[in-house]
Amino acid sequence: MKYPSALLENAVNELASLPGIGRKTALRLALYMLRRNPDYTESFSKALVDLRLHVKYCKLCHNICDDDLCSICANPERDHSLVCVVENIKEVMAIENTGQFKGVYHVLGGIISPMDGIGPGDLQINSLEERVAAGEVKEVILALSTTMEGDTTNFFIYRKLSPYNIKVSVIARGVSIGDEIEYADEVTLGRSILNRTSFNDSIKL
Amino acid sequence: MKYPSALLENAVNELASLPGIGRKTALRLALYMLRRNPDYTESFSKALVDLRLHVKYCKLCHNICDDDLCSICANPERDHSLVCVVENIKEVMAIENTGQFKGVYHVLGGIISPMDGIGPGDLQINSLEERVAAGEVKEVILALSTTMEGDTTNFFIYRKLSPYNIKVSVIARGVSIGDEIEYADEVTLGRSILNRTSFNDSIKL
Repeated sequence: MKYPSALLENAVNELASLPGIGRKTALRLALYMLRRNPDYTESFSKALVDLRLHVKYCKLCHNICDDDLCSICANPERDHSLVCVVENIKEVMAIENTGQFKGVYHVLGGIISPMDGIGPGDLQINSLEERVAAGEVKEVILALSTTMEGDTTNFFIYRKLSPYNIKVSVIARGVSIGDEIEYADEVTLGRSILNRTSFNDSIKL
Repeated sequence: MKYPSALLENAVNELASLPGIGRKTALRLALYMLRRNPDYTESFSKALVDLRLHVKYCKLCHNICDDDLCSICANPERDHSLVCVVENIKEVMAIENTGQFKGVYHVLGGIISPMDGIGPGDLQINSLEERVAAGEVKEVILALSTTMEGDTTNFFIYRKLSPYNIKVSVIARGVSIGDEIEYADEVTLGRSILNRTSFNDSIKL
């Protein structure tokens, strides 16, 4: 594709470098910006640069935040003895949206994936061990994806934390609420039968 | 959705203001930028601001360019007596990619669309008339979409140019090359029969 202007080509190249955005979409976005007021593009760019340059990570849980501690770790009403381990801040936001969790988080920043060159040293696993060693934590909930990499990471953390006298749990796996049993995949359905809960417990939720 | 950081929320809001990008995609893009080097975000933002602030439009055809005249209008080897009228620069790029057109363009910047509040005065129709009045143009090819708005604009331009002694043509409509006749829509198929070309002419292409 030949572009009539080097400025346009440059902008399209940058937009198309984003994941999931191809060159046709990038051109559409660049032309959209040209139709809008110049202030729009400036505030757009400023927001991205500000985020990248001034972002902070919580010293305790490594969640994105604006201060030294994120609002969850700084909140005295949260249960600091209950730590939920997640891969990324997207999971923190998803769990927070449920309104069901009153503990705190620990963001690993990824999962162990030898294929992508990510080992335990690249993740916030040592700082998790330090938090546990400090003594306040009573239970660690592992909330990673059920992939090969997620299971590997779960097992690595479980081994790492085994010297400490704490409970390590994983989130429940089972048939999604609203799903029809007949369409559930067999691994999930099998797991949901093995890990069945007492009916009395389930109606209390 | 609650965001852990105001900077992140701001960046997500800006990204989600782009057409076709929702809040989930915007969050994914913002987190992608956080994983990359800060230089990446800075050059990304700079490319967009540079485009918006320093973009120029060709004085003749209103195509995007880096100088006063676009490379097509400035090229003495193009046929300046043949002007192809298009809606936007995307169509210029598409036609240039075919390599079949040796004339020059005229970019309207939109089409007449009363529903969107776009009238003839918002488009580069007067400057097209000026180009024609200047005398060099012998033929104007209308290459707008076959929508109600495109047909209205075609007719408006045709009326506007009728006092001048030039040829006004529209691009051929017919069954796409590679398409099966049985699946062509009836309007297109009907038009392609009415506007049939001599077999001798068609094998020369």
